[in-house]
Amino acid sequence: MTIAIYDTTLRDGTQREGISLSLADKLKITRLLDNFGVAYIEGGWPGSNPKDAAYFDAVQGMELKHAKIVAFGSTCRKNSDPADDPNIKALEDARTPVVTVVGKTSMLHVTEVLQTTPDENLRMIRDSLRYLKSLGKEVIYDAEHFFDGAKLDKEYALDTLEAAIDGGADVLVLCDTNGGSMPWEITRWVDIVKAAFPGVPLGIHTHNDGELAVANSLAAVMAGVVQVQGTINGYGERCGNANLCSIIPDLELKMGYSCLPDKTNLRQLVPLSRTVAEIANLAPDNHLAYVGKSAFAHKGGIHVAAMRRNIHSYQHIDPELIGNEMRVLVSDLSGQGNLLSKAEEFGLDVSQTEAMKVLNEIKVLESQGFVFEGAEASVAIRLHRASPDYKPVFTLIDYTAIVEDRQGRGSLSEAMVKLDVDGDIVHTAAEGNGPVNALDLALRKALLPRYPQLADFQLADYKVRILDGNNGTAATTRVLIDTQNGNQRWSTVGAGTNIIQASWRALVDSVEYGLRVAHPQPRTAPVTPE
Amino acid sequence: MTIAIYDTTLRDGTQREGISLSLADKLKITRLLDNFGVAYIEGGWPGSNPKDAAYFDAVQGMELKHAKIVAFGSTCRKNSDPADDPNIKALEDARTPVVTVVGKTSMLHVTEVLQTTPDENLRMIRDSLRYLKSLGKEVIYDAEHFFDGAKLDKEYALDTLEAAIDGGADVLVLCDTNGGSMPWEITRWVDIVKAAFPGVPLGIHTHNDGELAVANSLAAVMAGVVQVQGTINGYGERCGNANLCSIIPDLELKMGYSCLPDKTNLRQLVPLSRTVAEIANLAPDNHLAYVGKSAFAHKGGIHVAAMRRNIHSYQHIDPELIGNEMRVLVSDLSGQGNLLSKAEEFGLDVSQTEAMKVLNEIKVLESQGFVFEGAEASVAIRLHRASPDYKPVFTLIDYTAIVEDRQGRGSLSEAMVKLDVDGDIVHTAAEGNGPVNALDLALRKALLPRYPQLADFQLADYKVRILDGNNGTAATTRVLIDTQNGNQRWSTVGAGTNIIQASWRALVDSVEYGLRVAHPQPRTAPVTPE
Repeated sequence: MTIAIYDTTLRDGTQREGISLSLADKLKITRLLDNFGVAYIEGGWPGSNPKDAAYFDAVQGMELKHAKIVAFGSTCRKNSDPADDPNIKALEDARTPVVTVVGKTSMLHVTEVLQTTPDENLRMIRDSLRYLKSLGKEVIYDAEHFFDGAKLDKEYALDTLEAAIDGGADVLVLCDTNGGSMPWEITRWVDIVKAAFPGVPLGIHTHNDGELAVANSLAAVMAGVVQVQGTINGYGERCGNANLCSIIPDLELKMGYSCLPDKTNLRQLVPLSRTVAEIANLAPDNHLAYVGKSAFAHKGGIHVAAMRRNIHSYQHIDPELIGNEMRVLVSDLSGQGNLLSKAEEFGLDVSQTEAMKVLNEIKVLESQGFVFEGAEASVAIRLHRASPDYKPVFTLIDYTAIVEDRQGRGSLSEAMVKLDVDGDIVHTAAEGNGPVNALDLALRKALLPRYPQLADFQLADYKVRILDGNNGTAATTRVLIDTQNGNQRWSTVGAGTNIIQASWRALVDSVEYGLRVAHPQPRTAPVTPE
Repeated sequence: MTIAIYDTTLRDGTQREGISLSLADKLKITRLLDNFGVAYIEGGWPGSNPKDAAYFDAVQGMELKHAKIVAFGSTCRKNSDPADDPNIKALEDARTPVVTVVGKTSMLHVTEVLQTTPDENLRMIRDSLRYLKSLGKEVIYDAEHFFDGAKLDKEYALDTLEAAIDGGADVLVLCDTNGGSMPWEITRWVDIVKAAFPGVPLGIHTHNDGELAVANSLAAVMAGVVQVQGTINGYGERCGNANLCSIIPDLELKMGYSCLPDKTNLRQLVPLSRTVAEIANLAPDNHLAYVGKSAFAHKGGIHVAAMRRNIHSYQHIDPELIGNEMRVLVSDLSGQGNLLSKAEEFGLDVSQTEAMKVLNEIKVLESQGFVFEGAEASVAIRLHRASPDYKPVFTLIDYTAIVEDRQGRGSLSEAMVKLDVDGDIVHTAAEGNGPVNALDLALRKALLPRYPQLADFQLADYKVRILDGNNGTAATTRVLIDTQNGNQRWSTVGAGTNIIQASWRALVDSVEYGLRVAHPQPRTAPVTPE
């Protein structure tokens, strides 16, 4: 049995407090979701904001392997014709093969929120869908507040679904918008809808307000729905949406359903979860089911010894199936072998002794807050530096960065760097928007005469994460820098209690990687979305 | 129908990575749980470590209103007599009215982990319980790996339960130790056990490895168990234990069960959740069902307007029932009405004109990258500043922050501030771990003589987010600072292209809010035990 996974991380997921995704972020996540193999990617609500409309323009050029892009919007307004309605126009302009239209199920919302009549609401649903179907689109109907509405007025709730069927809906999605339903209620109502409209494909959209979003989604699948809507890591408003990172492995590994083009794609689940967290700049939750860093972490001797005898004695699944790992073994396993294959990947000729040396350096840096997972260029440049005939691009003598605000004239940032570049002492200064920008500009100024190709390096992204927040402003800071040169892009990392110093270390790695590893023989495939 | 709540935060909860509770912490949590009204508090495993044994000594003197204290331990060892067994001796020495004994259900664990015979395991269970019953104790039997064991060998799994009944167990608790069971499996096995041992009271103990711990607990209740084991906030090994902060309101508010001595005790749920997080020194998860700070947070005008008309239109329950509150997120979507109700919440007397002025200021700042959603103290202090008789805590004259690395001696951060404090010019300097820490310390140094209460303000969290990463190191930075003073905690925001300037603005708001708004009239009730 196949279940269609409908991802709404880019729309409902961004309703979570504190998430804000740029257009580039949304395109990156689209690429990841498509590679993973979800059936639908809801990209945004083009009628609600210009950024979402820009997404639908940009995504046109993207070639996708598995997913269909979906634009989301509401029905036409009351007393309006869909052909003239701005909501519907925005959906049309999004030029997606699929649109999802949300309509009101609950009498409470029809009279109190829309402030219209029950019949007019039915017309709005029917006409909106009919118009969008006439454009040749696949149309998904989201029945907002379905379960609450049905409890209030079953007859009317079913009437709204009938209006959607009349309008030509391809799927009816039952939404637990307020997130408070119980699994057996979901089962009961899916059964009622199935009996009322036999053969109509159904979907489910749940929220986690009773900590039951996953269970409610699975209950709906057991009752016969064929589409499940949710988000990566369960991001979403209030307590979040249904978490696809739990639902997908529950369906695939526990219930025997198929929801990906290939079961081995499940191995991308952990990287997907963590990369989306990284892009959203949210700390990954280590305790998430399946994908959390602690999900297969085992303490103490008995467990580990038992596990060595039988992997299932203390684990519900083999973590490798979803790209996770049992944590006790991490320090023994990750290591020299991995590093040697990394070196090969970057075209670096590295001996076993050199790899060992870099491995030890990396372990020390990780204990200080560095994380090399998302920063392969910082690994590559360390491997490069370990080779016997390594010559540095420059040697730092001094740097200073100053920020000041005097007599209310606003802040000023200035930096100086003094470098030894192939035996020449170079001393430069620059002003910037902030201290890191000033240092960046001063460093480029110092190196540019010797390395004119630096002019093409663009700083494409700069991310900061505070690690042990409990130490307040004395906390450890981790900085990730993405640099772009043409269609090559690489990431470097720096860390420390001093954000300027952490940024400086990431900057130096970035420049040196770009000049020494990336430039002569570009080896990494472009990662920009088409 | 009554369900007995069995809290194991102090034992299984502390298996979570990163939790470590002192004896004093454990006693505080015991008091909180008893006031809240749980039936059982599992205090620890006295046989496993001396700290737990000390807890059972200390808790003897505590007078409890509702809860019974439970000591946890395993059965006697193989081929040993309970009367001479150190595990059993430790349970005896704990002098609790109730003990919980865990035994093996799964043939896999009997042969591979215990490395004994099936019959010897049955004897260990029976004899251990019989001995503890002979001491007059209430004895709860935890059937470890019950569901996995039963799937492997149903006959033997039921034999272990029978041995426990023979030993005199008062309750049989079915444990999903690996946390991977599905709700319908729980239902099926509870039905089987009920049929095999009619009339024997059953309990449930689940883990969250499939993100189903709450659903599995509720499924067991629906099938007839009378005791539910779990932890506050779902703390526990790997993905955590069943979260009592969701289960209790699900049972009380959705399912009509009674699990507290008085339904109004539910109002203590949010303070309980947050205080336990505080004691465990873990950041509260804002997105937790029911108790999270975001659980009833609403964005934007339509929702808020609808909510004013009917509180249930976008909420599954009234948040006051569990001690939570509806939060209207102040953002560029929201209007003057929101701001006035915010002012009321903070006890500030603000006119409509003043609110309008602050609203405009907020809109300008939001266009520069500020986000006030997570930074209510920055809103409050702006409302306070808008009042006609406002007098600033200080006026900034100059600040300077310097970071330098000279001749490879490592980085040094130093800051100076020059302030006008009530007409006095104060000029201070400090070194720090980084430039923001140095500024923070210099600012405190300057204000401390006039405001000694500043010594109690702790910077509890410091978050940095880069907004438009595409501008590289020239990107806009947003800084969020959490400050704590005893039980009060507040958040402030700063933003700009310069991280130092952004941090400075958040610091200034934090200090001024703490001194002017939070301090004089503490508005949040103290949540310390007793």
